[in-house]
Amino acid sequence: MDQTTKQAVTQRLASTAGHVKGIARMVDEDTYCIDVIKQIHAVQAALNKVSTLILDNHLHTCVTSAIQGDDVAEREAILKEITSVFEVSGKL
Amino acid sequence: MDQTTKQAVTQRLASTAGHVKGIARMVDEDTYCIDVIKQIHAVQAALNKVSTLILDNHLHTCVTSAIQGDDVAEREAILKEITSVFEVSGKL
Amino acid sequence: MDQTTKQAVTQRLASTAGHVKGIARMVDEDTYCIDVIKQIHAVQAALNKVSTLILDNHLHTCVTSAIQGDDVAEREAILKEITSVFEVSGKL
Amino acid sequence: MDQTTKQAVTQRLASTAGHVKGIARMVDEDTYCIDVIKQIHAVQAALNKVSTLILDNHLHTCVTSAIQGDDVAEREAILKEITSVFEVSGKL
Repeated sequence: MDQTTKQAVTQRLASTAGHVKGIARMVDEDTYCIDVIKQIHAVQAALNKVSTLILDNHLHTCVTSAIQGDDVAEREAILKEITSVFEVSGKL
Repeated sequence: MDQTTKQAVTQRLASTAGHVKGIARMVDEDTYCIDVIKQIHAVQAALNKVSTLILDNHLHTCVTSAIQGDDVAEREAILKEITSVFEVSGKL
Repeated sequence: MDQTTKQAVTQRLASTAGHVKGIARMVDEDTYCIDVIKQIHAVQAALNKVSTLILDNHLHTCVTSAIQGDDVAEREAILKEITSVFEVSGKL
Repeated sequence: MDQTTKQAVTQRLASTAGHVKGIARMVDEDTYCIDVIKQIHAVQAALNKVSTLILDNHLHTCVTSAIQGDDVAEREAILKEITSVFEVSGKL
């Protein structure tokens, strides 16, 4: 990852970890179930955003290099990974 | 939430918070992007499971009480919440 | 399903079937891949809406009757279905 | 799209359109709500598969050409589309 993406991603993940801990506290303090589920949804949306940032960076670096390179097998492998990540993301 | 669900949910959330922190470390140590995204997907699947546990408990407690109760407005409100949570969960 | 929901749902499904056929034509006429994927996303969002309508009606009819009824096993079964549908919807 | 993908995609879409019509009939014949929702989920999963097929083909054709080409703006645009499609797919 380039430095800017790396920093953005680690900051977002640190803040997400804090959010999840906060939700555990909410549960411990008997917050209403539906409000807890809404907070979990917010975390999942935040994680979608992080995945998108990482994928964007990945496309601009590794994927671009592989496609411009001469190694056909590597190119194939890297495209397959994108497809597979896309398929899983549609299942979450 | 009943005591068993509460304990299961807080434990899972604590473990998820740890997982997210671990992913931040992976990023910091330049783990391959696709492997990071896969870990994020794992966290999202774990959070789905937590939401499902909470909803299950909610249906057996608050929703059941409201539906068996006499307050039509409350019953309506509680069913609307379920529908709304279901709709959002289909968008994540 | 009550009559209003039934009509709304069948109309939306008929229109969705037409939308999907239209996408098949787009593919046949070599529409740009990304535009095809966007149309598929639109169909999936429309189907989410239909599921939500059906669930809403189900909660107000079958689920309400079962919870107000005396058959504990039936009540348990009907709540389990809601949880299971919620869990799957988080995976799509 | 290459010929094989195009054929696979149009066949799957035609079959999906038929499936959706079948669901409309199920609703008309008062099939149990939860069974209808399950069929809608099946359609959504089938559409995920179709999107994945199309994306896979797109990566091997347009995206590969653009990245190997000299037009920086086009390359940027095509990568941005992938990211955007990925982000939306995480929201469905």
